[in-house]
Amino acid sequence: MGAMRLAEQSRQWSAALAVIGDEILSGRTQDKNVAQLATWLNDQGIRLAEVRIIPDDTRRIVETVNALRASHDYLFTTGGIGPTHDDITVDAIAAAFGVPVVVHPEARAILEDYYRNRPGGLTEARLRMARTPEGAELLRNPSSGAPGVKMGNVYILAGVPHIAASMLEALTGTLEGGRPVVSVTVGARAPESDVADLLRETEEAHPGVAIGSYPFFKDGRYGANFVIRSQDGDLARETGSDLAERLREAGFEPVEGGI
Amino acid sequence: MGAMRLAEQSRQWSAALAVIGDEILSGRTQDKNVAQLATWLNDQGIRLAEVRIIPDDTRRIVETVNALRASHDYLFTTGGIGPTHDDITVDAIAAAFGVPVVVHPEARAILEDYYRNRPGGLTEARLRMARTPEGAELLRNPSSGAPGVKMGNVYILAGVPHIAASMLEALTGTLEGGRPVVSVTVGARAPESDVADLLRETEEAHPGVAIGSYPFFKDGRYGANFVIRSQDGDLARETGSDLAERLREAGFEPVEGGI
Repeated sequence: MGAMRLAEQSRQWSAALAVIGDEILSGRTQDKNVAQLATWLNDQGIRLAEVRIIPDDTRRIVETVNALRASHDYLFTTGGIGPTHDDITVDAIAAAFGVPVVVHPEARAILEDYYRNRPGGLTEARLRMARTPEGAELLRNPSSGAPGVKMGNVYILAGVPHIAASMLEALTGTLEGGRPVVSVTVGARAPESDVADLLRETEEAHPGVAIGSYPFFKDGRYGANFVIRSQDGDLARETGSDLAERLREAGFEPVEGGI
Repeated sequence: MGAMRLAEQSRQWSAALAVIGDEILSGRTQDKNVAQLATWLNDQGIRLAEVRIIPDDTRRIVETVNALRASHDYLFTTGGIGPTHDDITVDAIAAAFGVPVVVHPEARAILEDYYRNRPGGLTEARLRMARTPEGAELLRNPSSGAPGVKMGNVYILAGVPHIAASMLEALTGTLEGGRPVVSVTVGARAPESDVADLLRETEEAHPGVAIGSYPFFKDGRYGANFVIRSQDGDLARETGSDLAERLREAGFEPVEGGI
């Protein structure tokens, strides 16, 4: 809902994320990259429009990458770029682009440098991390040497969250984006069903905003946070004040910033 | 990789999850339903094969639901079934099936009962939660009254994790599934690049298992957990012992159960 209205205001840049991870789908690992990438993209003025979590399976990676890179300005992937036999992301993305995998000379130099004074040196397994689809560029990895990879509009990041974070940090400000979406949160100790009409009316009174309602149950009481989102920061803040006023009139104490 | 080998052993039941949630895509809320559903499905002998996180947008919900319900035995959705204007999941899924939305008499009775002695009673907004696609069945919600919905092979759950959990709890044992996948974890304080060959060889020596390698950086040291998965529990445990032995021979202390 919100997305369509926002699109009327100005050009929207959109991104998708493919999380490549048997460990997420098995429930073994709690994903942290979705929230981390979403927040970072907001700051770049790019909307995270879709996430797909898929297994470490070549055919599924190829299909997913080709579908998502065509339908969004940017595609990010996380996972599967380490040195072990189950790290197949680079091979699968090369297949998606129909190009061979090569050892990237600059990546090789980075790894030679990184492992020069480390036990074992640059082994065959570690050298796997210098492989990229032919024609790719590197993404800096300030935290552990092995670079990420940029192939066309596809940004191939590590799966380990703090390494993915450092690759994003290095990318900050380099992607073309629009105005960041501003969000304003107002909370209330109200069952959301009691304020449903009030919310819809507030949204209708302020074209250009989208209001989401997120209920919770905390300390034995029901409540909800109402999140107003817009690319127009002043409009979002005005709507927040108006919503707080309407909640107060209806007998609920609004909590600016949320509960 | 693992998935294809497992499929040779016996019929696999597969499920997909569609997370309907602007709040997840904006980074505001950390999803917890993926890991929770994955773990529950494992216990039912059903593999979570794919997750898509999509916005609260009717067209996107319809497309996603129709794609995923056709390609998996089961589709679960979370989110968008509350009483407010941004709760559009039921309408969108009815549209996906090409049927109208109706007030389900049994759901209405449940809500009448639930709200009888609660302030405000069964308001128009709350009655929205009795709406289902025509022909749907209800899913019990032991925690907050408003039921989930089963339409064909689509299970429509709440987005609030503890409510989704109680709906799953009520569904336990009712879905047809296969043998649960057993996983055995062995950890080591080894950079995974040092054991890449050893892992591949161990996997090759035990047809019917898949081994994943999950590196971490903890307490200033690198390490990794190796997860062996199989529908054959004995095979998984044998492979775990063999892997531990191989790690020990290579000079790394294996940690059964993982680090």
